[in-house]
Amino acid sequence: MNEKLLSKGNLQLKRFFNLDSQVYVAGSLPSKTKELMGLVASAVLRCDDCITYHLLQCAEEGVTDEEFFETFNVILIVGGSITIPHLRRAAATLEEIRTQEKGTKKKGKTAKKDKR
Amino acid sequence: MNEKLLSKGNLQLKRFFNLDSQVYVAGSLPSKTKELMGLVASAVLRCDDCITYHLLQCAEEGVTDEEFFETFNVILIVGGSITIPHLRRAAATLEEIRTQEKGTKKKGKTAKKDKR
Amino acid sequence: MNEKLLSKGNLQLKRFFNLDSQVYVAGSLPSKTKELMGLVASAVLRCDDCITYHLLQCAEEGVTDEEFFETFNVILIVGGSITIPHLRRAAATLEEIRTQEKGTKKKGKTAKKDKR
Amino acid sequence: MNEKLLSKGNLQLKRFFNLDSQVYVAGSLPSKTKELMGLVASAVLRCDDCITYHLLQCAEEGVTDEEFFETFNVILIVGGSITIPHLRRAAATLEEIRTQEKGTKKKGKTAKKDKR
Amino acid sequence: MNEKLLSKGNLQLKRFFNLDSQVYVAGSLPSKTKELMGLVASAVLRCDDCITYHLLQCAEEGVTDEEFFETFNVILIVGGSITIPHLRRAAATLEEIRTQEKGTKKKGKTAKKDKR
Amino acid sequence: MNEKLLSKGNLQLKRFFNLDSQVYVAGSLPSKTKELMGLVASAVLRCDDCITYHLLQCAEEGVTDEEFFETFNVILIVGGSITIPHLRRAAATLEEIRTQEKGTKKKGKTAKKDKR
Repeated sequence: MNEKLLSKGNLQLKRFFNLDSQVYVAGSLPSKTKELMGLVASAVLRCDDCITYHLLQCAEEGVTDEEFFETFNVILIVGGSITIPHLRRAAATLEEIRTQEKGTKKKGKTAKKDKR
Repeated sequence: MNEKLLSKGNLQLKRFFNLDSQVYVAGSLPSKTKELMGLVASAVLRCDDCITYHLLQCAEEGVTDEEFFETFNVILIVGGSITIPHLRRAAATLEEIRTQEKGTKKKGKTAKKDKR
Repeated sequence: MNEKLLSKGNLQLKRFFNLDSQVYVAGSLPSKTKELMGLVASAVLRCDDCITYHLLQCAEEGVTDEEFFETFNVILIVGGSITIPHLRRAAATLEEIRTQEKGTKKKGKTAKKDKR
Repeated sequence: MNEKLLSKGNLQLKRFFNLDSQVYVAGSLPSKTKELMGLVASAVLRCDDCITYHLLQCAEEGVTDEEFFETFNVILIVGGSITIPHLRRAAATLEEIRTQEKGTKKKGKTAKKDKR
Repeated sequence: MNEKLLSKGNLQLKRFFNLDSQVYVAGSLPSKTKELMGLVASAVLRCDDCITYHLLQCAEEGVTDEEFFETFNVILIVGGSITIPHLRRAAATLEEIRTQEKGTKKKGKTAKKDKR
Repeated sequence: MNEKLLSKGNLQLKRFFNLDSQVYVAGSLPSKTKELMGLVASAVLRCDDCITYHLLQCAEEGVTDEEFFETFNVILIVGGSITIPHLRRAAATLEEIRTQEKGTKKKGKTAKKDKR
């Protein structure tokens, strides 16, 4: 998605994108915590695209539905009712992610069967 | 610090404050993660008082300096250079917290000796 | 619209939504004033969905076009030209609301006639 | 307080300041409602100086403590816990305003007595 | 695009729009610099419509691709990764503007030929 | 001022600070324009420390009072009246900068005389 921006972008833009991906890599804190932080920051600053991105990353890190909704609570309390439309869309996106995950798992199982 | 606000405040204000403290209580996610989320949200929304509050809560949850600085990195990348003055003050507050912690530990040791 | 969010959401989410609706109920200040406040807050924080919601609530409270445009002025002055695209959409939404109101009134009249 | 800014400022700056004061003048909506809107906008955008200014204007328009705290509720719900430090300071400023009002009234009474 | 807003809008709204256009007119600073400022402000405040508007104005003032991308860098550093989706859309809009410019130039050439 | 932050900060923090200073270096656009952009971004995002920093940098790049006040106009129109307290402080800071500049020039002249 960032191809167009990066293909034309100068060296500094590329360096920023580099830093941007390094920052979520596991260090003293696990990636899961860092991606959850990215989700919280994106939501209180109210950027839907950023929220979707971090929802996907968090799901890959194994964040459960309960954990997501506890995170939504922190977002709602700190950011106020102005975040509700974003949380509404986040809940819908999360549902899509879970549906896709099930599809992939099924496919995975079938694929395994096929291999036999 | 919220006494004045709460003493005069109506029932709804009190209920909000109630929700506000419940939200950081350990659930599926540990308190430490939730307090770190509170710190990130406060910092990208750039509220010094909120940052100080969550730094204190995080320190109590045992967040280490390395973990704090990795969190500062996420804040800086998501929120941009506009967060730098807040991170500068956060780093100074953190140093004060650590100094006070050492003082308390020493006192604690002395207190223990005294007890014997 | 919040069904999905609330069906999965935990108790704290529900409590926040409860507080959120209580806050606009008439007290010392009439609902009309509170809904206008909700509109102003939504617009300077620039959330289109929230603006639409409060436009509808305000219209139900009998806010006139002159009152709406005086409110838009406060929004524009406090929030600056960055609010213009939102006010543009708000003016379009308001027009739709008025058209629908006329339709409902006509239907109402016909319905009354039918009853006779 | 704006003297320095206006003395050096160009014509456009002065015109903006003109518009800024016109916007709160009674029209279809009373000044009280407009000043309350100004307070809400200032608080959700989190500007202490602007909050203080509108608290003073609102007090002059006869806003009661109950009305102020209902307004604080709207601010808290829409803007979230990030507004708490500002509301805390607003509650303290309000108390100062009330103390000063009492002083002025007493003086007024004495002054009236003196006149007799 | 502002017709609906202005046709119904009161005198103060019109005056604000007047000021809004005056502010980018060349003075001590050239229009190009002022439009670039408008672009930066729109982007760090994250308003796509405003970004598109100023991209068009800047292109008309002769801003080159290199200059645009250096501006995107300032935006990215000050505003952080939360501005990335807006910069992505800005880069796409810029490409469209350039394509249209080429079309217009070709047409211009053909038109000139036709005139002969 | 960033010493404490950088001394404890990790590599990524340092890299961000590096990028932050590179971004204002003259490229296709002159430093003066870029520092003015930094000022505009800081002011519409309402960070006094950042505003002061860019006022100093701009003054060093030779920005005149007329240019500063035209910039303040863009800030005021895009960002609205919520930026007024920041512009008020900016105007005061600018005055201090000019006073200090005069002092330095005088000293410079005296110093030159002394050298002879």
